[in-house]
Amino acid sequence: MLKLFHAWGSCSLASAIALEEAQADFELVMMSTKDGDQRRPEYLAINPKARIPALVTDHGVLTETPAILAYVAQAFPAANLAPLHDPFAFAQAQAFNSYLCSTVHVAHAHKHRGYRWTDDPVAQAAMTRQVPQNEIACFRLIEDEMFQGPWVLGDAYSICDAYLYTVMGWLPGDGVDIAQFPRLADHSRRLAERPAVRKVLALQAA
Amino acid sequence: MLKLFHAWGSCSLASAIALEEAQADFELVMMSTKDGDQRRPEYLAINPKARIPALVTDHGVLTETPAILAYVAQAFPAANLAPLHDPFAFAQAQAFNSYLCSTVHVAHAHKHRGYRWTDDPVAQAAMTRQVPQNEIACFRLIEDEMFQGPWVLGDAYSICDAYLYTVMGWLPGDGVDIAQFPRLADHSRRLAERPAVRKVLALQAA
Repeated sequence: MLKLFHAWGSCSLASAIALEEAQADFELVMMSTKDGDQRRPEYLAINPKARIPALVTDHGVLTETPAILAYVAQAFPAANLAPLHDPFAFAQAQAFNSYLCSTVHVAHAHKHRGYRWTDDPVAQAAMTRQVPQNEIACFRLIEDEMFQGPWVLGDAYSICDAYLYTVMGWLPGDGVDIAQFPRLADHSRRLAERPAVRKVLALQAA
Repeated sequence: MLKLFHAWGSCSLASAIALEEAQADFELVMMSTKDGDQRRPEYLAINPKARIPALVTDHGVLTETPAILAYVAQAFPAANLAPLHDPFAFAQAQAFNSYLCSTVHVAHAHKHRGYRWTDDPVAQAAMTRQVPQNEIACFRLIEDEMFQGPWVLGDAYSICDAYLYTVMGWLPGDGVDIAQFPRLADHSRRLAERPAVRKVLALQAA
């Protein structure tokens, strides 16, 4: 059975939602990043990067949200979670997810995890201050240029929607009002009503 | 015809190598990031992110290196540049590329592009100082845990090899001696001898 290592507030939420949308049989293993669960030896044996998520499969372990999402879409094709038979459309989905992981997630990480890039606390505080401004620039671009509507890729719901919903969820805590992105705020509202999302949110709160 | 927007020293080198390995018919458009070509209106009309690479195809524009690489592998299946028929193995390739874009490339970007995360020059200098240490940690993990050998994914050359070669190329300029990663240093030497790599390096120098 699939086993997803997930933490509250982590980007791993996207993978949990995708697995639930795919009606996959999986176990959700709750981790606490505050308690440093991701640095314990038993987890490092699963994912030596000391990051969440990790998806344990019968074939081995997968890490990195865009890779896990693509895997769920390809392993459960009946769920129609990505345009699997059109290389260009599939690459557009990958491009969207790649932007979220390499630019949007990184922008957010400079709030509390500036120690990754400098051990100087004054410099870390300087980075933290700029986080809202950087996130606003990212979501302005997504709202105006990247989001096709009603779903990320247009008419079909996909893995990209679960990932967008996940990173949008960080904005209020970072001091960014999502009302300035009306199309994306509406998207988040619709996502929150999906049975798969409600089920995952209930599972992680249990 | 495909048209790849590329700049010297950019991660776009990986896409150029992949296209050449696929024997794709493509035009290489050289951009100068030093001159700010990526912020000119005519390029923003192609890629509003103001980043390189962008691949113009008959279907539209693709951005983000992992997405372009996956597209090249899927659009030119005869070149065998990724394990296209095994969702787990394909996801492993995506996971490797995702790590390069969201962790390794980001570590490197803190050297000269710290302004993305703070406008404080003292904080930017603090980030620049930590770059070699962060890159060494990333490549230690790749050498010890991720690189299967003789190629990234094991027996078969793939898009991941072109991308690894590209980011490895940044290390000497960042003050990191690649000899401390003997398997990866050997990989870079073998890549530099491939006809596709030699052709792209000649093209970008022309």
